[in-house]
Amino acid sequence: MNLLLLEEADFISAGRVVLHDRRLAHLHEVHRAAVGDRLRVGRLGGLLGEGVIERLSAEQAELSVSFDQPPPAKLPLTLVLALPRPKMLRRVFQTVATLGVPKLILVNSYRVEKSFWQTPFLQPEAIHAQLVLGLEQARDSVLPQVVIEKRLKPFAEDRLPALASGTLGLVGHPGPYPACPRAVDTPVTLAIGPEGGWIPYEIDLLGKAGLNPVQMGERILRVETAVTALLARLF
Amino acid sequence: MNLLLLEEADFISAGRVVLHDRRLAHLHEVHRAAVGDRLRVGRLGGLLGEGVIERLSAEQAELSVSFDQPPPAKLPLTLVLALPRPKMLRRVFQTVATLGVPKLILVNSYRVEKSFWQTPFLQPEAIHAQLVLGLEQARDSVLPQVVIEKRLKPFAEDRLPALASGTLGLVGHPGPYPACPRAVDTPVTLAIGPEGGWIPYEIDLLGKAGLNPVQMGERILRVETAVTALLARLF
Repeated sequence: MNLLLLEEADFISAGRVVLHDRRLAHLHEVHRAAVGDRLRVGRLGGLLGEGVIERLSAEQAELSVSFDQPPPAKLPLTLVLALPRPKMLRRVFQTVATLGVPKLILVNSYRVEKSFWQTPFLQPEAIHAQLVLGLEQARDSVLPQVVIEKRLKPFAEDRLPALASGTLGLVGHPGPYPACPRAVDTPVTLAIGPEGGWIPYEIDLLGKAGLNPVQMGERILRVETAVTALLARLF
Repeated sequence: MNLLLLEEADFISAGRVVLHDRRLAHLHEVHRAAVGDRLRVGRLGGLLGEGVIERLSAEQAELSVSFDQPPPAKLPLTLVLALPRPKMLRRVFQTVATLGVPKLILVNSYRVEKSFWQTPFLQPEAIHAQLVLGLEQARDSVLPQVVIEKRLKPFAEDRLPALASGTLGLVGHPGPYPACPRAVDTPVTLAIGPEGGWIPYEIDLLGKAGLNPVQMGERILRVETAVTALLARLF
């Protein structure tokens, strides 16, 4: 937790917050915090700043807070991701938030197991919790937007062309394709497939929407690693 | 498991193996394998090739195997890493093997908690197990070398200068440093710090050994994410 991220419900007045939850436990157990300690804070959806611990007990922490710095810029990116398996999904939410992805669209794919869509990790509060962890890691205060598109075909045919219009449209896909470009200076729409990859029909669908395959070498990467590697190369 | 990785003990003759362990379970549960199925195989430390399932039961699988392709090239890199916390360490071993790092040196740092050195995940057989998982993911057959240097100062003063000689020496470190270079064409020696970063004394030590700080932007990344992002940018 490199940033103490504050939500509206934490505020008892304009410049004062009270914490009870895992953040309080973290202050005690990891920061070994004491009254008077100064901490980096952020207001969810707002600015970053500084907090001072005014009172501290086993039950709660009260901090005075002020905000004066903008959060780090987001990447100029829309990330389209075939739904990963649940354990990976949780980490992907964190990673996406940490890396500064502003918009994540989760889609179905032939190789996504149907059971993955039943995971409790897709509940809004579970998504929110993982995104917040990722923001705290990166010292960012602005949640990525997460959109769930359970059917790939209508998404790719009806909505993706407009999303990808005016951007560099890419699909991360192993094979005899051009290498992923480096240090691009345009907005990007990037689609990353499931374990096992997109099937040819899906590559066609994405291609018609303006997304063309690029590769990262012959090694097959886990989804989380592929997301990080592609974004580090692109931006 | 994108590759079935075979060790010497699996061979019952030159071109035949028998499996009993988690790989057998994986064949049944994930591949839903049947007699006659063909699978990508690799010989640990040797070539890649193809296996055919000749017999299959709940207790064992017998495959005929042949080997004819070289594994993918490793990166021209020595990676020096401050020991991560145990849970992260396991994933880092996998990631390092997947990405093609040939040599990983784990070092101490002021901000590494002493207890981390007690983790069972540093036992040779535990390291081996995680590296094998990473190789199977990437379809590689050659284990990275893992070296443990519990004391940073003698390592940085006595052994690191020779290791880094003739390479581009870099330290991933947040701050007012040059951006990590892209697509380098020389071998690299790269050091990545612990959560919380190297302390100034350590940056000095690494600098005297020829490793100079570079940054990846203002977002603070988890160790595993930082390793992937730096390597994707460098190579």
